[in-house]
Amino acid sequence: MESKPRPKVVIVGAGFAGLTAARRIARLPVQVTVVDRRNHHTFQPLLYQVATAGLSPGEIAAPIRWILRAYSNVEVLLEEVLDFNLEQKKVITSQQSLDYNFLIIASGATHAYFGHPEWEPLAPGLKTIEDALEIRRRVLLAFELAERQAADQTATGQTNDQTTEKTADGPTALLLQFVVVGAGPTGVELAGTLAEIAHHAMNHEFRSIDPRQSRILLIEGGPRVLAAYSEELSRKAEDQLRRLGVEVRTSHMVTRVEPGAVWVGDEKIPSPVVLWAAGVAASPLGRKLGVPVDRAGRVFVQPDLSIPGHREVFVLGDLAALADENGKMLPGVAPVAIQQGDWIAETIARDLEHQPRRNFHYHDKGSLATIGRAAAVAQLGKFELSGYFAWLAWLFIHIFFLIGFRNRLIVMIQWAWSYLTYERGARLITGSNELTGWTQSQLHAENSKDTDPTVAAGQRRA
Amino acid sequence: MESKPRPKVVIVGAGFAGLTAARRIARLPVQVTVVDRRNHHTFQPLLYQVATAGLSPGEIAAPIRWILRAYSNVEVLLEEVLDFNLEQKKVITSQQSLDYNFLIIASGATHAYFGHPEWEPLAPGLKTIEDALEIRRRVLLAFELAERQAADQTATGQTNDQTTEKTADGPTALLLQFVVVGAGPTGVELAGTLAEIAHHAMNHEFRSIDPRQSRILLIEGGPRVLAAYSEELSRKAEDQLRRLGVEVRTSHMVTRVEPGAVWVGDEKIPSPVVLWAAGVAASPLGRKLGVPVDRAGRVFVQPDLSIPGHREVFVLGDLAALADENGKMLPGVAPVAIQQGDWIAETIARDLEHQPRRNFHYHDKGSLATIGRAAAVAQLGKFELSGYFAWLAWLFIHIFFLIGFRNRLIVMIQWAWSYLTYERGARLITGSNELTGWTQSQLHAENSKDTDPTVAAGQRRA
Repeated sequence: MESKPRPKVVIVGAGFAGLTAARRIARLPVQVTVVDRRNHHTFQPLLYQVATAGLSPGEIAAPIRWILRAYSNVEVLLEEVLDFNLEQKKVITSQQSLDYNFLIIASGATHAYFGHPEWEPLAPGLKTIEDALEIRRRVLLAFELAERQAADQTATGQTNDQTTEKTADGPTALLLQFVVVGAGPTGVELAGTLAEIAHHAMNHEFRSIDPRQSRILLIEGGPRVLAAYSEELSRKAEDQLRRLGVEVRTSHMVTRVEPGAVWVGDEKIPSPVVLWAAGVAASPLGRKLGVPVDRAGRVFVQPDLSIPGHREVFVLGDLAALADENGKMLPGVAPVAIQQGDWIAETIARDLEHQPRRNFHYHDKGSLATIGRAAAVAQLGKFELSGYFAWLAWLFIHIFFLIGFRNRLIVMIQWAWSYLTYERGARLITGSNELTGWTQSQLHAENSKDTDPTVAAGQRRA
Repeated sequence: MESKPRPKVVIVGAGFAGLTAARRIARLPVQVTVVDRRNHHTFQPLLYQVATAGLSPGEIAAPIRWILRAYSNVEVLLEEVLDFNLEQKKVITSQQSLDYNFLIIASGATHAYFGHPEWEPLAPGLKTIEDALEIRRRVLLAFELAERQAADQTATGQTNDQTTEKTADGPTALLLQFVVVGAGPTGVELAGTLAEIAHHAMNHEFRSIDPRQSRILLIEGGPRVLAAYSEELSRKAEDQLRRLGVEVRTSHMVTRVEPGAVWVGDEKIPSPVVLWAAGVAASPLGRKLGVPVDRAGRVFVQPDLSIPGHREVFVLGDLAALADENGKMLPGVAPVAIQQGDWIAETIARDLEHQPRRNFHYHDKGSLATIGRAAAVAQLGKFELSGYFAWLAWLFIHIFFLIGFRNRLIVMIQWAWSYLTYERGARLITGSNELTGWTQSQLHAENSKDTDPTVAAGQRRA
């Protein structure tokens, strides 16, 4: 006896929400197609470690089809979704159109540049493996160019210095100014880890510069860092950042990014490496659905995560806008995405059995943010934790949830090694040896009178 | 009491030769500058593992300045050397000029395209981390595009097939044809490992194609594979390749490479992924010295590795052309480079002590080439070995010489894991999702009558 065709479920995006949904829905009598424009799932919470040369990409990312290999009713397609035809129940990709009975859209979010998309190449964000490698390239290259610059000055006698002490004067000092924009979890991680690299990881490796003279600036428009946490934890996080050597400037808006510099209010801060961790822009696919979205492009979903008028279309993860019981919007974090992925499987199961749907409720088990070596903050209900033990908790939870046993083992070894030696294992510069907008001629211009003297590190030492 | 300035030694290139030289010369009372256009030393013998997704770049490469951090009289510069002024004893880089008392040039070699540099983007070679990542991207992408293609055909009913069996017909089969040009050690490693990936690593991960239907062709112009080994070992290597599923074609010349295809004699072989492992072209810096070079651009050096007319300028590693006692040219392999690096330190030490120089002699301790999982050949003097034990010897020697204890540990874990599970840990596609010269329209054209029927895998199954 031939059974009738199974319902088709198409899942767009294999982040935490999409992947969890795929794994759970695969147990139902349905046919699942997962479409993603990348071949791999990225474990985003550890992406900053790739950007800061602590881990290799392969250690925090795994092929989607490998993760889902055990489910024979799941197929994975490497394609970009361009549009939807909700009336005909079709997903339109760059290659074909896919029919569905249930559609789950979980294509996530990226950073927003406050209406200035032209800043993106000048100040990369951190959402993909490619982003992380680009940030790594820029950070490592800045130290290399500073060493070259300083060695060149010494060789040609441009420095009047009679001492052999390594001093970062003018142009060299400017090369060692790093700016991170936005003090949410990603900005805090990046700034803290950059400070760790500058102050510890590369000691004794340079002959003409001293990496410890680097400045790491963390710029935040709001009044405090990690605004999603309590004021007490924000203050503790800021203290920990300062102890790691980060200069924190809250209530400062970035007004402009240009090649080799960032403007904070009216002040120009020359910097070869500006990193962007501010704002949220939802995936453009949200706007293709013809339903209301918020300012960031997130889709206002019903309490069952479906969209108005289409019970069979769900939006979840960072792309969804949904308030909790208290009217507070759910944050764009992994636990929300995972719980929604789990929950959607239950909803589809209930639909298949003709049972009424239930509304999604988020169970907040707490939040953790890491700041740097042995520094973190944790909010677990009313219980707050900061410092070494919060960091240990963060570490074990994140390694535990990392995909694949081999990856967990290797990341643990890398971490233990880094902790003991301060070394970072993946300090490779691949791609171009040029820094966008940072040329030799500009270096000299930056060093002339038009530079704000308060921001030149060389002056600070005077 | 102020001592007089130490002699300056400039080393160009931080491969096996340059790095060994730097480490040994650092113990002499000299000032050493190592110049390389990359920030990392690449452990070339394991580069094919990065290209075939077994290892991550960070596991086989390490920053040059990290490797040399303990030597305070060594500075490392990330710069590209453009030229030399041998009369004024200057090295000219893109940024500055460096004075030297001793100059060591070890900038290596790359692949030669038989006078067709335009083939390079179509058929990448394997010399750098970037090359390896590009090869990895193309190989993994071919499987993804084949799956997409096959899924699309099934969805749109293009196949007349009534069975649900996964068959690679026409266009899909063409996407699963991989061609490796050149059956030296690199070509043999690549072909053997590609066969392993196709036939084992991705089982049960695809729904519309069966990766085991891939064809891996190894094309060699000469009469046998691994021509540097004995005829007996060549034969055994060829047997092992065939057992792994590689089609070996010796005495076949590649006459043309075009987008999406390679021509062998008069036969056109459509292939989305053509890899180049043939020929040798020495670094162009060799020709800047104004002394005789061989056809590949290698510099004919004196028996003490200096160049004619300049006792203070040495060329070593793959860039040097030198014959052994029997008049046979030394091969471009790591042991030659390492022994030359060691030896050059001794020569400079003798010069500093005004002792006469000695001639370089290569001590051939044997050669090893790996073919794939549990397959290798070894020539140790008159003693020959092949198969599992040769592979074990190869494995332990290569892991032992890998730079850094942490790397050795992690590579060992990765290898043990891969051996037990057949899995490959670094299967990430980064960068573009397009295959050079391989478009949907071409796929259809390739499948029409002008294709040689003997090479279409779909036909083979008929």
